[in-house]
Amino acid sequence: MTDLRCNSQRLWNAHTAMAVFGATPSGGVGRLALTDEDRQARDLFVTWAREAGCEIRIDGVGNIFARRAGTNPAAAPVMTGSHLDTQPLGGRFDGIFGVLAGLEAVRALNDADVHHEKPIDIVCWTDEEGSRFGDGCLGSSAFTGGRTLAETLAMTDADGLSVGSELQRIGYAGPEPVGGYAVDSFFEVHIEQGPILENAGLQIGAVEGAQAATVYEITITGEEGHAGTLPMTLRKDAMRGAAEMIHRVDDVAFEFEPYPVITVGHVRVRPNSRNTIPGQVVFTIDSRHPDTETLAAAGARMVAICEEVSNTQGLGLSINVKGHRDSVAFDTQCIQAVRDAANALGIPHMDIYSGAGHDAIYLARTCPAGMIFVPCEDGISHNEAENARPEDLAAGTDVLMHALLARAGRV
Amino acid sequence: MTDLRCNSQRLWNAHTAMAVFGATPSGGVGRLALTDEDRQARDLFVTWAREAGCEIRIDGVGNIFARRAGTNPAAAPVMTGSHLDTQPLGGRFDGIFGVLAGLEAVRALNDADVHHEKPIDIVCWTDEEGSRFGDGCLGSSAFTGGRTLAETLAMTDADGLSVGSELQRIGYAGPEPVGGYAVDSFFEVHIEQGPILENAGLQIGAVEGAQAATVYEITITGEEGHAGTLPMTLRKDAMRGAAEMIHRVDDVAFEFEPYPVITVGHVRVRPNSRNTIPGQVVFTIDSRHPDTETLAAAGARMVAICEEVSNTQGLGLSINVKGHRDSVAFDTQCIQAVRDAANALGIPHMDIYSGAGHDAIYLARTCPAGMIFVPCEDGISHNEAENARPEDLAAGTDVLMHALLARAGRV
Repeated sequence: MTDLRCNSQRLWNAHTAMAVFGATPSGGVGRLALTDEDRQARDLFVTWAREAGCEIRIDGVGNIFARRAGTNPAAAPVMTGSHLDTQPLGGRFDGIFGVLAGLEAVRALNDADVHHEKPIDIVCWTDEEGSRFGDGCLGSSAFTGGRTLAETLAMTDADGLSVGSELQRIGYAGPEPVGGYAVDSFFEVHIEQGPILENAGLQIGAVEGAQAATVYEITITGEEGHAGTLPMTLRKDAMRGAAEMIHRVDDVAFEFEPYPVITVGHVRVRPNSRNTIPGQVVFTIDSRHPDTETLAAAGARMVAICEEVSNTQGLGLSINVKGHRDSVAFDTQCIQAVRDAANALGIPHMDIYSGAGHDAIYLARTCPAGMIFVPCEDGISHNEAENARPEDLAAGTDVLMHALLARAGRV
Repeated sequence: MTDLRCNSQRLWNAHTAMAVFGATPSGGVGRLALTDEDRQARDLFVTWAREAGCEIRIDGVGNIFARRAGTNPAAAPVMTGSHLDTQPLGGRFDGIFGVLAGLEAVRALNDADVHHEKPIDIVCWTDEEGSRFGDGCLGSSAFTGGRTLAETLAMTDADGLSVGSELQRIGYAGPEPVGGYAVDSFFEVHIEQGPILENAGLQIGAVEGAQAATVYEITITGEEGHAGTLPMTLRKDAMRGAAEMIHRVDDVAFEFEPYPVITVGHVRVRPNSRNTIPGQVVFTIDSRHPDTETLAAAGARMVAICEEVSNTQGLGLSINVKGHRDSVAFDTQCIQAVRDAANALGIPHMDIYSGAGHDAIYLARTCPAGMIFVPCEDGISHNEAENARPEDLAAGTDVLMHALLARAGRV
């Protein structure tokens, strides 16, 4: 059985062909959801899936389901997939790999004339990136009840165009109901978007879950003054407070095991003039950890530090939680199916956590779900320079195919 | 003699009349050098000075000298004055007070029929603020040999208009040579632009000198990365480095006596996105201290801290000195003349240092010079909200008048 492998060259060629729609001059892809470029990518996928013998169904939010029939048509399907939309200046692999790996698995099963009891569905979820309509994972969120169909269709972009009207325009407002039926399990293969696998020299990560994430916005209010004339002891320097907060907040990461990731990525200083003491600084803290409670404890430490600094320095302080999601643990059997497949194929692997959001995190709400990570070059993603090696994509696809087969019941 | 006082109401009225030219909707003044508004202000000063019996001379960079004759026409003049130009959104007092106080002193001497041996010159120096032609103190710098006449006239604004052509346009390219003759002494009265006198409840500061100042631009280079996926131990976070540097650099102020003033007023983060680890941060350090060598020692400490942090965190570092001026000590006799005048008038006073730049600092290169500070509301300056009390302006004018008389030799 372990000689059942995908066709690495065909998989790579599919990526190359798909990267044409929205190709950027620097070698990346800009393909926002429900644009003409997204329609072209969807059309090509549908054509390929039909050629591979799949039955196509499209639901009311434009999610595409390409089914390889099982011997038991009544069985709940095993699903795999990801998304075809990208960031405005994104790469050729984020999302696309998860769709094309599913397609390649079906093609390889066809080549080997291998069959299974439960149906296998390859899914293209609508608008995972969230770069156009204000929130991500629109398709998988609607499918799992996170947002109603009506709410989803009413979401609008910066030009006032709605998801509903854009689905109609590109011909992907499908007749099928959105979710509401049993799914056996969902597997998503994805580039890691980080450097852990590459640094470890491994091709496969069995994803245990997704980190909890909390974003804070910290506003520090002091008093503007002349840099040359206001003595240090009379100052209320918002930047002085912000610097101590950021310095100490970053260090909170090392107080917990395993380390959370803590990032101050955005800082805004007012008036931001060389010879004026800053009167206000606003900065964000993006914090993530596999365990929701550990993240909350780290958050409490960070808030306490900001409060202590503002009190000591006599500065105004406002802390707003701009976003939060709990951690998600993937299904233990799905995680084990990934490890088992890698072991059977002789591919060294490690357990890993997802720091980013994915459709699989939404699917985990309603069915057993798991993910497979493969390395990407220098861990770079959401960037035109995003890159991956054909052999790593093939390894991920092989593991996916064997996990799907195990779950779908090879006959 | 100490019953010789200025006319406080006339002094205040002069400020009100002068604030018309370039008046802003919020009650401030925007009167850039060599604009039509500057010409209107100059014209009014010249009219008033002539009405007060002064002889007007204008030099090649547009400095205006209004002379009250002394009994010895051959004696080197005692000078006082400041500037009539303002910041783009400046106030009614910065610079203007120093000119109008000189005028009011002459008017009060006329009223009392008081005479002196040496001539007293009221000076309007051209373009102190430096908001238009790229550098400040153009007139006093040219007068004291800091920049040649030709270099000064060739300086251009953002529209390519030169100092020379704008002087011609507004009619203030005068025939007199620029400097090169003996000046007995120079006194400048100015609002403090800081809160020290107001907090001390005093009306007069005898200015001992001007602080040395050094401005650094620090560039920290790390590596961008995904906030959710790059482990803390693998990061090169430019903001993490910047925060530690700024936090520790601010604290350097408290390692020296008296404290230098250290200000990080400008911070620029790239890409400045919430969920991306910053790849580059640029910030400025504005540092000032009365003693040049102490400031240099503080600077060496700050540079060492930045180097230590960049080494420890594995970040790139570039430090550029963007500007420096040595400290200036005013003439001990001029400082004492200010103290003596205040004592004679029964006005409590304190010694103080100037944190900002002033024309008097340039004059100190070529003649005995001193300054008098009066409080301004909340220490606010370079701001439309700049304000001062009529009684404080009058106190400063009285001290100026008596210091001028002492130096000019009352007869």
